[in-house]
Amino acid sequence: MQKKTKTPFSREVLTQFLQVSPFHLWLDLQFGEITDEGLEIIMPWRPEIVSIPEPRQVVHGGILASLIDLAGLYAVMSQGGQPSGTAYVHVDYHRQATSGPFVAVSKVLKIGNTLSTAETSILGPDNTLLASGRGGYPRATDKFY
Amino acid sequence: MQKKTKTPFSREVLTQFLQVSPFHLWLDLQFGEITDEGLEIIMPWRPEIVSIPEPRQVVHGGILASLIDLAGLYAVMSQGGQPSGTAYVHVDYHRQATSGPFVAVSKVLKIGNTLSTAETSILGPDNTLLASGRGGYPRATDKFY
Amino acid sequence: MQKKTKTPFSREVLTQFLQVSPFHLWLDLQFGEITDEGLEIIMPWRPEIVSIPEPRQVVHGGILASLIDLAGLYAVMSQGGQPSGTAYVHVDYHRQATSGPFVAVSKVLKIGNTLSTAETSILGPDNTLLASGRGGYPRATDKFY
Amino acid sequence: MQKKTKTPFSREVLTQFLQVSPFHLWLDLQFGEITDEGLEIIMPWRPEIVSIPEPRQVVHGGILASLIDLAGLYAVMSQGGQPSGTAYVHVDYHRQATSGPFVAVSKVLKIGNTLSTAETSILGPDNTLLASGRGGYPRATDKFY
Repeated sequence: MQKKTKTPFSREVLTQFLQVSPFHLWLDLQFGEITDEGLEIIMPWRPEIVSIPEPRQVVHGGILASLIDLAGLYAVMSQGGQPSGTAYVHVDYHRQATSGPFVAVSKVLKIGNTLSTAETSILGPDNTLLASGRGGYPRATDKFY
Repeated sequence: MQKKTKTPFSREVLTQFLQVSPFHLWLDLQFGEITDEGLEIIMPWRPEIVSIPEPRQVVHGGILASLIDLAGLYAVMSQGGQPSGTAYVHVDYHRQATSGPFVAVSKVLKIGNTLSTAETSILGPDNTLLASGRGGYPRATDKFY
Repeated sequence: MQKKTKTPFSREVLTQFLQVSPFHLWLDLQFGEITDEGLEIIMPWRPEIVSIPEPRQVVHGGILASLIDLAGLYAVMSQGGQPSGTAYVHVDYHRQATSGPFVAVSKVLKIGNTLSTAETSILGPDNTLLASGRGGYPRATDKFY
Repeated sequence: MQKKTKTPFSREVLTQFLQVSPFHLWLDLQFGEITDEGLEIIMPWRPEIVSIPEPRQVVHGGILASLIDLAGLYAVMSQGGQPSGTAYVHVDYHRQATSGPFVAVSKVLKIGNTLSTAETSILGPDNTLLASGRGGYPRATDKFY
């Protein structure tokens, strides 16, 4: 479906990259399934991610946006893309996220020469669609900024 | 420019709302200027918000997306809107964010009956535009979900 | 998956709605498959939709954005939503669209009380993904503006 | 504010580019003011752009999305960017567009090495904000697709 620009990164290498980021470590992320279309990232609950504390705790939209952003980037890396970062992200919020863990399911739309794109869904414990969105990731060999 | 749906919230009330959220407290946010178009929110650096640690530390895009999301929501509240949360957010990343503090400057585009919109720019210490974007905020009196 | 808010519109009723719009008639749209998740809309080539005429004709991105916008709206209608119009649309362009017909495949993400969302892919004659995106559609019973 | 990558195109050259596109000719576009931040594009009413014909005629969102897409691209060209096309566009619809002419006011956010961005507002005859949005435009020297 999409053009592979180089050998995709392995789970081990992806995990090393993921754990280089202090924010990713703080979010306590780990990979779920990695397929030939994309991958899953699992995030547990933690008290600091709450936006609205009452009447029931709801996760902040920015945390879900972070997951959609980063899951798309790793999905691109898992399919042979070499992203240097994120150019843009769009997120739709569908339902309040009131309990974890959360699974980000990300699928590559296109591995491009300049920009790769991926779409990501955030599912709650019962597979409910909580949020979904997409991001664009410029190629690392380009001088993006 | 935009229709006011009720008396806008004061700085004191906005600050109370802002500090209800554990994620906002973790981000250590505070309001800057509040005008008749929107407002500013200031966020300091903290080590856990880093995405790329080397060769120089870069803030994670999800943190900037969080700021754009929440600054727009408070901008809507400051102009008489009554948002129940965020329906969607779009973020463009312009430059790497390598030092703080960060100022989110948010301006209301429209206070609507169903949905209000605001656009937000994230500026670095030297007023460089780091990221910008926009969000849509459904009215609290609606049953959004 | 999504909550049905009322009996979905039939193909006949959807077709009547589609053909009320002068712009839709100009685009010469017709429905393809209608499923329990969404629907397809087919658009032929016409000379006025060209953006770049040489070295080979490429369809204007605004035409593909129009298709993504309207296909999502009709997908929402096909699943029991009652959209009053479009609140927002996001479009990613993946490949140049150089020959038709084009098929917009649209799937509802959520039928909501305030806002429904749908995602749409535009496929070329050989099923190549040309563009994709998503839109949000406020409920008709709300006074959106 | 933004880095100039080469001498910006003049109004004459921009007009030549604009009129190469059959879709732009169909929309009957012309430039308004061109400043050192961006430019304006003016579009008249025409019957085929209508989405909803009754009780009063409303312009199709796809037409406004087209304007936001193309005005941003020409704004980038007017500031020294060399876009090859559009990578993505995001549009918010604020009010129904019921009479023309329409003015798209577009301002460059960033001229980038890989991607340039611009934001655009669509104003009605009385300067009412009808829609607004932003687009990302890859550099022509890159092989985008």
